Amino acid sequence: MSTNDPDLVAFRRDLHRHPEPAWCEFYTTARVVDALERVGVDALYVGTDALDADLRFGVPADDEVAAWSERALDAGADPDVIERLDRGPTGAVAVLERGPGPTVALRVDIDALPITESTAETHAPAVGGFRSRNEGYMHACGHDAHATLGLGVLNAVKASDFTGTFKLFVQPAEEVIGGGKAMARGGHLDDVDYLFAVHVGLDHPTGEVVAGVDEFLAVEQFEATFTGRSAHAGAKPEDGRNAVQAMAGAVQALCGLPRHSGGATRVNVGTVDAGSATNVVAERAVIRGELRGETTQLKDHLVERARDAMTGAAETYGCEVAVKTLGEAPSATSDVALVDIVEAVSGADPDVTRPMRRGGLGGSEDATYLMAHVQERGGAATYVCVGTDHPGGHHTPTFDVEEASIPVGVRVLAESVLRTAEELP
Amino acid sequence: MSTNDPDLVAFRRDLHRHPEPAWCEFYTTARVVDALERVGVDALYVGTDALDADLRFGVPADDEVAAWSERALDAGADPDVIERLDRGPTGAVAVLERGPGPTVALRVDIDALPITESTAETHAPAVGGFRSRNEGYMHACGHDAHATLGLGVLNAVKASDFTGTFKLFVQPAEEVIGGGKAMARGGHLDDVDYLFAVHVGLDHPTGEVVAGVDEFLAVEQFEATFTGRSAHAGAKPEDGRNAVQAMAGAVQALCGLPRHSGGATRVNVGTVDAGSATNVVAERAVIRGELRGETTQLKDHLVERARDAMTGAAETYGCEVAVKTLGEAPSATSDVALVDIVEAVSGADPDVTRPMRRGGLGGSEDATYLMAHVQERGGAATYVCVGTDHPGGHHTPTFDVEEASIPVGVRVLAESVLRTAEELP
Amino acid sequence: MSTNDPDLVAFRRDLHRHPEPAWCEFYTTARVVDALERVGVDALYVGTDALDADLRFGVPADDEVAAWSERALDAGADPDVIERLDRGPTGAVAVLERGPGPTVALRVDIDALPITESTAETHAPAVGGFRSRNEGYMHACGHDAHATLGLGVLNAVKASDFTGTFKLFVQPAEEVIGGGKAMARGGHLDDVDYLFAVHVGLDHPTGEVVAGVDEFLAVEQFEATFTGRSAHAGAKPEDGRNAVQAMAGAVQALCGLPRHSGGATRVNVGTVDAGSATNVVAERAVIRGELRGETTQLKDHLVERARDAMTGAAETYGCEVAVKTLGEAPSATSDVALVDIVEAVSGADPDVTRPMRRGGLGGSEDATYLMAHVQERGGAATYVCVGTDHPGGHHTPTFDVEEASIPVGVRVLAESVLRTAEELP
Amino acid sequence: MSTNDPDLVAFRRDLHRHPEPAWCEFYTTARVVDALERVGVDALYVGTDALDADLRFGVPADDEVAAWSERALDAGADPDVIERLDRGPTGAVAVLERGPGPTVALRVDIDALPITESTAETHAPAVGGFRSRNEGYMHACGHDAHATLGLGVLNAVKASDFTGTFKLFVQPAEEVIGGGKAMARGGHLDDVDYLFAVHVGLDHPTGEVVAGVDEFLAVEQFEATFTGRSAHAGAKPEDGRNAVQAMAGAVQALCGLPRHSGGATRVNVGTVDAGSATNVVAERAVIRGELRGETTQLKDHLVERARDAMTGAAETYGCEVAVKTLGEAPSATSDVALVDIVEAVSGADPDVTRPMRRGGLGGSEDATYLMAHVQERGGAATYVCVGTDHPGGHHTPTFDVEEASIPVGVRVLAESVLRTAEELP
Repeated sequence: MSTNDPDLVAFRRDLHRHPEPAWCEFYTTARVVDALERVGVDALYVGTDALDADLRFGVPADDEVAAWSERALDAGADPDVIERLDRGPTGAVAVLERGPGPTVALRVDIDALPITESTAETHAPAVGGFRSRNEGYMHACGHDAHATLGLGVLNAVKASDFTGTFKLFVQPAEEVIGGGKAMARGGHLDDVDYLFAVHVGLDHPTGEVVAGVDEFLAVEQFEATFTGRSAHAGAKPEDGRNAVQAMAGAVQALCGLPRHSGGATRVNVGTVDAGSATNVVAERAVIRGELRGETTQLKDHLVERARDAMTGAAETYGCEVAVKTLGEAPSATSDVALVDIVEAVSGADPDVTRPMRRGGLGGSEDATYLMAHVQERGGAATYVCVGTDHPGGHHTPTFDVEEASIPVGVRVLAESVLRTAEELP
Repeated sequence: MSTNDPDLVAFRRDLHRHPEPAWCEFYTTARVVDALERVGVDALYVGTDALDADLRFGVPADDEVAAWSERALDAGADPDVIERLDRGPTGAVAVLERGPGPTVALRVDIDALPITESTAETHAPAVGGFRSRNEGYMHACGHDAHATLGLGVLNAVKASDFTGTFKLFVQPAEEVIGGGKAMARGGHLDDVDYLFAVHVGLDHPTGEVVAGVDEFLAVEQFEATFTGRSAHAGAKPEDGRNAVQAMAGAVQALCGLPRHSGGATRVNVGTVDAGSATNVVAERAVIRGELRGETTQLKDHLVERARDAMTGAAETYGCEVAVKTLGEAPSATSDVALVDIVEAVSGADPDVTRPMRRGGLGGSEDATYLMAHVQERGGAATYVCVGTDHPGGHHTPTFDVEEASIPVGVRVLAESVLRTAEELP
Repeated sequence: MSTNDPDLVAFRRDLHRHPEPAWCEFYTTARVVDALERVGVDALYVGTDALDADLRFGVPADDEVAAWSERALDAGADPDVIERLDRGPTGAVAVLERGPGPTVALRVDIDALPITESTAETHAPAVGGFRSRNEGYMHACGHDAHATLGLGVLNAVKASDFTGTFKLFVQPAEEVIGGGKAMARGGHLDDVDYLFAVHVGLDHPTGEVVAGVDEFLAVEQFEATFTGRSAHAGAKPEDGRNAVQAMAGAVQALCGLPRHSGGATRVNVGTVDAGSATNVVAERAVIRGELRGETTQLKDHLVERARDAMTGAAETYGCEVAVKTLGEAPSATSDVALVDIVEAVSGADPDVTRPMRRGGLGGSEDATYLMAHVQERGGAATYVCVGTDHPGGHHTPTFDVEEASIPVGVRVLAESVLRTAEELP
Repeated sequence: MSTNDPDLVAFRRDLHRHPEPAWCEFYTTARVVDALERVGVDALYVGTDALDADLRFGVPADDEVAAWSERALDAGADPDVIERLDRGPTGAVAVLERGPGPTVALRVDIDALPITESTAETHAPAVGGFRSRNEGYMHACGHDAHATLGLGVLNAVKASDFTGTFKLFVQPAEEVIGGGKAMARGGHLDDVDYLFAVHVGLDHPTGEVVAGVDEFLAVEQFEATFTGRSAHAGAKPEDGRNAVQAMAGAVQALCGLPRHSGGATRVNVGTVDAGSATNVVAERAVIRGELRGETTQLKDHLVERARDAMTGAAETYGCEVAVKTLGEAPSATSDVALVDIVEAVSGADPDVTRPMRRGGLGGSEDATYLMAHVQERGGAATYVCVGTDHPGGHHTPTFDVEEASIPVGVRVLAESVLRTAEELP
């Protein structure tokens, strides 16, 4: 495989055709692994060897994972890779050993979303024959392009005179902020000096590149289960301990958590599922929500207050509550040293019509786990945005990537990796 | 078919073997209709001819109804009756014309519950081979016995020297308080002078008969759908109109509806289903609940206040709410004239060891629609409880009816019908 | 003093002129004590000797009590009695020892209300010159008549051939349900076999007597103080622990306490006082409310649930709560034995035009403490209502007692006391 | 009066001795007016002539205002000025006409706080004999120094070769954000080209000067009165419409107003006063609170949502709500042109040890009304902070101003006024 456009475009379209949800990216992992092996790498870690499986969040039920594994085989995934994955964690880490020098890494993510892809005539994948074959699922956030960029950059680095070590992190389960922590703590990141993470689009058209994205909101996603005591609502209401009331009290307490003078925070109770029948005092209510902060400290403050709020609300109505974390990610900031390099590289690229120094995400993303891990150990990291015209917004049925942006991204990232190894200590 | 015990027991066991949920009682209706036709009646109305289909509550989706219709055929139901029912309303009304005299009626109900029947060795239907064949459904409230009583009483009345008109109302969908209104307003009740309704058990052992059950709580079951506006909870929380918050406010307002000096009331929000994802401000929240009152007026008062509460809660959070009635039933009181008769008849029956004049239900039951309809037109009604030993409680997997109570019930009710026609104007 | 009308009417008007609030009935106590001493009793206990001072509820601040003590002196109260009361508890117990026989007692109450009495020309006290001289306070519930009835009955019993012991309990602070417990547990009630309590009016006109009033709601009045942590609402909202939010959560939890199948209950949060400034997170919020139940058990159940609710609500918002009881009273039922006697006596009285056997209060009254105390020890009690035309409703500025009802009440009660001692064991 | 320190210090101490709350600054206004007349100005507007009285917020009751007017006379205020003020609005505007050139203005505020001043030996005013003589009130935010700075600057400008027009705005009622709007719209600000506002301290020690303070939170203070219907909580709870419940629902809705991605917001319900008695369903509940936003738009967004929330909460419980604005202030930003000048002047002053370009307030202040008014008309404004050592924090009993900072402030402000007239168009 070469870095020329047609190959990468074909690769991306194949992934686009086979979108898989978090922790179910068997086909995708197998395709990436196959391609990396064909390119030739010095080490390649897959599944449990690539990350710390115990630190995963948001893993679906075993039978669902197994079904996706089967589906990948049916779709033509390499049986050897599927066997190595063993219906366990997906994802991979590839390593190029190129002599002395710093260790530079790129992180890409690979999961898709539970969205039904558009069939409109204006939607390129529908017209071009690479619309999702996994009905109800869709690459609606460009992770197919991310995986493709990862492959292209590794290929380009290998083809260059880069000296040092290059690592490619192929991370599963970003959409549920479920894979970042497991991959950050899987061991392979410990010796990384410089980390690049990449996202396409984000409302930046083809030709724009943002050298350092910031304003990641630290986040915790939680699930709280309120347990009371059921009773016949007509005959014995006094025997009940009403989990619906406890839930309602908790919703109001959570939404009423005070603002913080230290920066932006967010609270949301996104889903509620409670009770069994109109005439039964509900024994059980489950809420799922999230807490965010402009900094990890702000998020942690909210998490602590939220725990008290939910415990108190449960007690108010004679119920109990069990809270578990569904996923989490810290905040992060892009480092000046790497922002300088990406900005310079972008400015020099003929196809980058608008190089931008800084941008803001205003959301959450678990690449921050990897960024923070590198930064805590003295390294530097930046989160780069490669613009791409996308007709529909992110997470909508008509989202698509303009494929002309893929070689731009490969060039800018590969050149930044090289320049980093050359210029930084 | 005669009124002797073996036949009735066999009939009851056949129904017990084929429990069907509300508005899906195709097998049951067909069996009852067949039996009535074999006995011979002067008029027999089935399905849409028996009730006002527009006034039904709690009707399942068409495909679910159709599936139960198929299932009835598979189980051996008479295809002619199934065809007449035409996948529409179930239920029937039978009439015996026996010369001049008052019109006396008996109302029985026929639906079962979504409960999985016990397989324990102590559970008679499991041991005796008449456990539910419709897995997940069960006659856990004795309506199989009610239908049997109805048949037995009609048979006994026909065999007697009763003069006047006798009607048997075979009502579907009592468990969802869904069939009472439709049957009360179907026309056949308009000329009824005296109405008996019957329930077995209710914690009264075999040998006890309660001549007049009271303390029916009038009830409304409702569904409220709160609609707000979704938004990304991290990026644009201010754009959202949070249906989860509106729901929580409504839950607290409903549970906080004031007590009433006029008598007992009840409020319950039994189920909640809201939102789509942790990171999305919920656009939609659905609650299902019920309001009850010791009198219909008390219930109506609550319903009015509850509507205001839900509308206000929605507006508080910039949302809208649509409320619909899922089912309803008025309160009712058993009339002295009929209570006198049943008490006297019970007292004279050798197998009634403990005749009781009055008892209380403390719950809701849509026989009250029929009772109220008769009473409003100047007639009289009573709700009779025929005791039966039941090992498990009503609505539990080990509920069962002691079959020895069936002939007792037939005798008491048939004799009461006769005596009513003789003694009352 | 004799029992003839003019004396009693003059006595009642004197009390009416000097209404005093709960625990401040110095003038009233002194007048009653003087009158009792003039009649001549075998024992007379005043203030701390009449009740258990530690069990009082709703005692005003010392300086307020002292001011009313002074005011009583200024109004001409006997200085000896005022000195014995020593600015402490008011009230008295008088005893007539009349040989062997049961101990029969009558309980009356003496406090007035913080209501400004009408000056209308249609208001008899205003026209007749006995309107309240303590502006802002008024005998708007007839306790002036109650004290008068007590005196009249004792006088009549003394003049009769009654054999046994007769006790008159002159109870302070009924309006705040503050004196009943203290008097019930003061020792003098321990040997009472039969207790009568009396109230005038209650919407019964002159000529009606209710032999046994029931439907007393047991009650607890409480005060809850929520303590959080203040903070500048603009600069450091996160430092606050918001007592206003905790209070709001508690209000909703209290109002949402479930109904009870065992009978009527009531919940009210009547007053709220919270916070210090718009821009300060409130450190403190105080609510006052009450919980009632048709039985003492129902009330106790509510009290327990309410405590949990308030504790939980406080914790939900990082606050603490301290709850104290402001007043309480149990439920009670009038005993058949005494109801029979009063009914018979009333039926025989020429001025009782409508003797009634049973009536309902539907409110709370701390005579129930005394009734329950006697009943728990094997005695019997009844609460009698002596009808009186009252132009304005109870607790309104135009309430008044028709004085013709006073001799009727004296006769019925005195005769009932006699008959009780004669007929009951 | 000269600008030398002793005079200004004496003036400040006199004001410190006579703290007056918002709209009651009669003594203060009289003293300032006297001093200005002694200095000699070209025009002097007082009370209703200085501002638009209809736009005032937070005006106390007439009798309270009158009492402070009397108190000012007793303390020796000039009777002529007191008469001109006529128990109406306080405050003044002074004008120096000094030939052609721009109109430059300085705004100072003059009101004190309802705080009892410290008597500690470490508290300079207590030791120095100028502690508050108006017990319970205190200059705890340095407005005594602000008025002094205003006088000093006007004196210095007059003594200089300033060309143009200089105006001094002496604004009442800043602490209740009550006077800014009235003064901004009083007419005298319409032709102002450049406006300086000043505050001392703000945690900046003597020697620091901040050239441009920003981060003013726009604010609205509101009062909402919920009106329901009272009822006896025991006898007729269903007749009540509970204002306490409506209030609680509103508190939770207000505290649950969503965060905004556009910047910081604040919500507070600071005080609650509701109900009349434990056994009465509350007819009335009053809350006072505030809404703030980093921008005026954010504040306005909150205000709109808050109105809906309160209306909805009232309706939820069958109540009504009336909301009124107690005070408000927009956000504002200091203009670069003036910040440049103050920074340069500060940098050149020998006693300014630490000139600072920008600082943040993080609170609210109604000088923003005047700043916004000037800016909307094409002018420029800046809010200057003159550092001063203050032992206690702002709004605490031990707050004090180091008087050595006063001449520093006078010099920096006067020199900035001159330089502005010289350098800016």
